[in-house]
Amino acid sequence: MSWNWYNVSGPTVVVDKKKAMRNIERMQAKAKAAEVRLRPHFKTHQSDEIGSWFRDSGAERIAVSSVPMAEQFAAAGWKDILIAIPLNPRQLSAYNALATQTRLGLTVEHKDALEAVEELTEKVDLYVEIDAGYGRTGIPWTDPIRIDDLLHEARQLPQVRQLGLLLHAGNSYNRQGDDEIAQIHEQSLGRLDDLVSRLTFPRDELLISVGDTPTCSRMDSFPGADEIRPGNYVFYDLMQQQIGACDWQDIALAVACPVIARYPERGEVVVHGGAVHFSKDRVTIDGVDCFGQVMQLTAEGWGEPVEGALLHRLSQEHGKVKVPDWLQNKLQLGDLLVIVPAHSCLVMDASKGQCQIID
Amino acid sequence: MSWNWYNVSGPTVVVDKKKAMRNIERMQAKAKAAEVRLRPHFKTHQSDEIGSWFRDSGAERIAVSSVPMAEQFAAAGWKDILIAIPLNPRQLSAYNALATQTRLGLTVEHKDALEAVEELTEKVDLYVEIDAGYGRTGIPWTDPIRIDDLLHEARQLPQVRQLGLLLHAGNSYNRQGDDEIAQIHEQSLGRLDDLVSRLTFPRDELLISVGDTPTCSRMDSFPGADEIRPGNYVFYDLMQQQIGACDWQDIALAVACPVIARYPERGEVVVHGGAVHFSKDRVTIDGVDCFGQVMQLTAEGWGEPVEGALLHRLSQEHGKVKVPDWLQNKLQLGDLLVIVPAHSCLVMDASKGQCQIID
Repeated sequence: MSWNWYNVSGPTVVVDKKKAMRNIERMQAKAKAAEVRLRPHFKTHQSDEIGSWFRDSGAERIAVSSVPMAEQFAAAGWKDILIAIPLNPRQLSAYNALATQTRLGLTVEHKDALEAVEELTEKVDLYVEIDAGYGRTGIPWTDPIRIDDLLHEARQLPQVRQLGLLLHAGNSYNRQGDDEIAQIHEQSLGRLDDLVSRLTFPRDELLISVGDTPTCSRMDSFPGADEIRPGNYVFYDLMQQQIGACDWQDIALAVACPVIARYPERGEVVVHGGAVHFSKDRVTIDGVDCFGQVMQLTAEGWGEPVEGALLHRLSQEHGKVKVPDWLQNKLQLGDLLVIVPAHSCLVMDASKGQCQIID
Repeated sequence: MSWNWYNVSGPTVVVDKKKAMRNIERMQAKAKAAEVRLRPHFKTHQSDEIGSWFRDSGAERIAVSSVPMAEQFAAAGWKDILIAIPLNPRQLSAYNALATQTRLGLTVEHKDALEAVEELTEKVDLYVEIDAGYGRTGIPWTDPIRIDDLLHEARQLPQVRQLGLLLHAGNSYNRQGDDEIAQIHEQSLGRLDDLVSRLTFPRDELLISVGDTPTCSRMDSFPGADEIRPGNYVFYDLMQQQIGACDWQDIALAVACPVIARYPERGEVVVHGGAVHFSKDRVTIDGVDCFGQVMQLTAEGWGEPVEGALLHRLSQEHGKVKVPDWLQNKLQLGDLLVIVPAHSCLVMDASKGQCQIID
């Protein structure tokens, strides 16, 4: 059945499969050319069906950020899953169960995390997280002794199959444009290289996994890394567009929202589409908090952004949209606004991976 | 089985039933004393079980903010449901189906919404939304002619059983303390009274429904209203505490988050608990964005706030928490931080109404 906007009744997450496939295939080709493995991060979509698109393009291993996601994708047949969030000792029994179904990777940075690993009954891959400047999680790259100690100690554990280093340069999200993204990229990989050169632990026993969507989207080589781990690139979003990680035509996800009230005197309409659909993640455009950009509606999806049409305020189910007069004048009650969100990952999490797919 | 924190493995929404019941019963008693009907807004919890607590306390009618919520609670046996978001003409068939199961209320403000009502095959209650200063949805209170016209026109429709006016003074959320809340309360009800006095439409044919958690929590009388419609009061949260709508001991919902990394050098720990659990709704405390307040853990729940322990940064699954030294020093990997969120309604939406209940 071909796509038809007529079938949309309430706020609906819509994924344009052609655009998503182009994004998936482009990253797969880039990883191949750069001679690194690709481990797409599936927290972005949380959908078995969309997961299968990656498999069709050659992906064999994935990252997730929670046990429930790992369980979902293990059940969907994925055989190599890295849980890219620090190990939680309260979840050992879940890790054991997962490790019987899939090659399981865990993330650690504290010695007491190794004590938890020692209690596992199954073998796992173990990644030591490195902080190369983002300042969220990981051992600072400036502390090679602590990292070396942890690696040597981990190698003694019978539960550990493969050791690795894991890096997420989330600070790339505060940058704009290729020059600034390149700066973070070179800084992160340079620090990682510096760290590795100071370790007594042998490099060839380590699998080095890096990645975030801005650097993986804009850079072509990943010196020192064995694997890249971007996630958001399958859909992109307004935040990535503002960073300069993608163009408008790459964005593969939007939320279709029915107009439920019109206020010509305020230059606004209100849509059914709120914080529970968009999340409250935002970008700042010209000093204004902005949760989404209205796109031109087409028969088969959406086109270019509508200038001056921004989702600028959200309550639980209502969204306030600034609209230009020409659009205000033609909008009827129940008309759809198709809105690219600030952050696609949180939109898909809010819908629990449910979406309408435009083939 | 008595409550045991030992059974919490991942990030978990926890509801303290004793506190919630006290909040429910206090509001029920207040409505009775003020001689108004109480129609609690169920978008706050979206849980059949928690809904039954309201029923046990005498609630007979509810408000919701979407068709799926109306369907959920109609299936759970609620016989009077108001969908307190403007009518969406794309959902007429859902409205018809609902109206066969429950006394259904719809919200309108545009003439073309009446054209949609004319297409219904079932009878509904119809509320005209009034904007008394909040500036989100509704016809401005300063336009009695438009409101009068709409009411007279609606009365002609065979689908309309009962007419009403609906007001939500969401601007109370920008206030702090009883004086400021009282100011919004008096302003809103004063404007409503002024509007009603200018209508030719008979007052005794109108059901007037008002309400928001700050004014309903702090004020004792609702002159001119037939019904109050608060929602968040069952749980409250950090935002309501900051507004002054509740005390710490009234807050009945928190998120238990395992500590997954510790950074004494930054005065921080990282918990598994992120934007997908807390939403990104926030309050600003001393100029700092804040998504949650850590509470003292007790055997049966939680006690007072821990001074200086704030959830101040969120990514999808990670939360960064500022902690004082004494707490940092005793936190082990996997220990739980019990965190009152900025906005309980969005937390329960994120968990789709799933929570652990402390009896």
